[in-house]
Amino acid sequence: MNLAISIDDIFGAARRLEGHAHRTPVLRSRTVDELTGATVFFKAENVQRMGAFKFRGAFNALAQFDPTQRERGVIAFSSGNHAQAIALSARLLGMPSVIVMPQDAPAAKVAATRGYQAGDARSEIVLYDRYTQDREAIGRELAARRGMTLIPPFDHPHVMAGQGTAALELIEQTAEGGPLDVLLVCVGGGGLISGCAVAATALNPGVEVWGVEPQAGNDTQQSLARGEIVRIPTPRTIADGAQTEASGRLTFPVIQALVRGIVTVDDAQLVQTMRLMAERMKIVVEPTGALAAAALLHRADGLPELRGRRVGVLISGGNVDIGRYAQLLSA
Amino acid sequence: MNLAISIDDIFGAARRLEGHAHRTPVLRSRTVDELTGATVFFKAENVQRMGAFKFRGAFNALAQFDPTQRERGVIAFSSGNHAQAIALSARLLGMPSVIVMPQDAPAAKVAATRGYQAGDARSEIVLYDRYTQDREAIGRELAARRGMTLIPPFDHPHVMAGQGTAALELIEQTAEGGPLDVLLVCVGGGGLISGCAVAATALNPGVEVWGVEPQAGNDTQQSLARGEIVRIPTPRTIADGAQTEASGRLTFPVIQALVRGIVTVDDAQLVQTMRLMAERMKIVVEPTGALAAAALLHRADGLPELRGRRVGVLISGGNVDIGRYAQLLSA
Repeated sequence: MNLAISIDDIFGAARRLEGHAHRTPVLRSRTVDELTGATVFFKAENVQRMGAFKFRGAFNALAQFDPTQRERGVIAFSSGNHAQAIALSARLLGMPSVIVMPQDAPAAKVAATRGYQAGDARSEIVLYDRYTQDREAIGRELAARRGMTLIPPFDHPHVMAGQGTAALELIEQTAEGGPLDVLLVCVGGGGLISGCAVAATALNPGVEVWGVEPQAGNDTQQSLARGEIVRIPTPRTIADGAQTEASGRLTFPVIQALVRGIVTVDDAQLVQTMRLMAERMKIVVEPTGALAAAALLHRADGLPELRGRRVGVLISGGNVDIGRYAQLLSA
Repeated sequence: MNLAISIDDIFGAARRLEGHAHRTPVLRSRTVDELTGATVFFKAENVQRMGAFKFRGAFNALAQFDPTQRERGVIAFSSGNHAQAIALSARLLGMPSVIVMPQDAPAAKVAATRGYQAGDARSEIVLYDRYTQDREAIGRELAARRGMTLIPPFDHPHVMAGQGTAALELIEQTAEGGPLDVLLVCVGGGGLISGCAVAATALNPGVEVWGVEPQAGNDTQQSLARGEIVRIPTPRTIADGAQTEASGRLTFPVIQALVRGIVTVDDAQLVQTMRLMAERMKIVVEPTGALAAAALLHRADGLPELRGRRVGVLISGGNVDIGRYAQLLSA
């Protein structure tokens, strides 16, 4: 079966992102190396533009719009990092954006998204009532009426290819000491891990790519076991970026083909990991961003032995309300 | 008058630190550039080994011990970053360390210092009662009895030269775009700013070096106005690394000769700055570490116009108890 993207799509995305996305740093931590016995490389997408890897996929998708699409603009429904990624990418590319968000989205997120739209009078945020209205219907209706292009948060080849550039960079940045043995990536809808798995296995054929989900939201783990996409109710977890109900029709086949397996961590382990990253690495990481590191530090059930191996860990983002962050750190 | 150190001492320190201290990254922030109109370069000593610039000075001092000194070891009195810097440097250089700390020092700091001493049975922490005992007398008595060398936290040429390597690196790392116009550095006892002022003015003769003190602890500002070292009661401020009562006899003349002036910020401004650095830059900074950035962001009274200029900002450290940090962020 043909997968939705190839390494060439990721190379293309990398070219498109040059000068727009940050080439984020790779961080090391003696503490983490000592605790795990591994040589660990953290790819710090928490310091990516708008604070998460999502910028990569959004910009890569929007940069491929044709002139008519650019003129009419982009529409997205999201209250999270995808919203901000689309709003910022649209502004940078000079096109209007409409972001559809629930009425009860945190004010800070609405404000941040408006901030990224700033300066473009054609851009707006459309609020809906999540108890009485269907966001997908709203999005589709708006897209049709205004001729705007809808970009979904993960199940799109250009989005997946953009996200894969995070792993491409990590592998380039760590090439000096040899290939990575293992790569740990968080899993929501599968956009990041599918792109990263394509990049990593193309460049380091021996690498084992493992996904990490919140224990309460292990739909992809279930899907792999079942051999088909399993849909679960919206999971309760602090990892809001991984509160997806199911992987995508494009992302899942890539995960099936290239990912060794999915392991899970619970919310308490996420909080401990966020605290360790603040204390020892001096970085702010959002709960979803700590998934992969938490699996490493807590030796999540199912992971292979990591001692003595070169392990890449994707830190996916750092966007967490500071009041909420303070609450989690002091819990 | 001869100053205690020259640029050659700092070059020497840089050689000694190679392969031991981290060449810490220089961080940029679009948000900060937009807020200030300046081009700002943050030197991230919060990710230095043991979490603060203090490692530079301690290691540079201990690396110059003669064989007898090495055998007998080093003694320091400090409950803060200097303690950890000495303990770690001593372990790396294979010598014993004795750290004199108040009995009521936070358990986390005692534990961290013990952690850095780990593996050396000859090293220890000596606790004293700060209400009934004089720590300097204890330190001197121990030093004399055991033949150990006392290394003070700032007023020592090797310590000052070591700290200066932070500015040396910052200037090297930002050289591509031209010299820095302004350098902002926090001031406690003056070890960091004196070393940095020597490095910066030697390499970028046009640079203006400004010091930043907590409003409640502006002894150096007073000293500059008076033309002699002014001693104040231990100031009440959350910037615990700048709770010094007076600059040093070696550091003050350097500050008089090379620093343009001292400005101050209050605790509320420090907290706002720590929050902005967490939110937008995704980094954890201790209160003292935020002094220089707070002066920039709050346009501290006395600073020159910074719009359109290239400004270096020293982030001195990131060691803050996580419970305390959470409290400050949520305040």
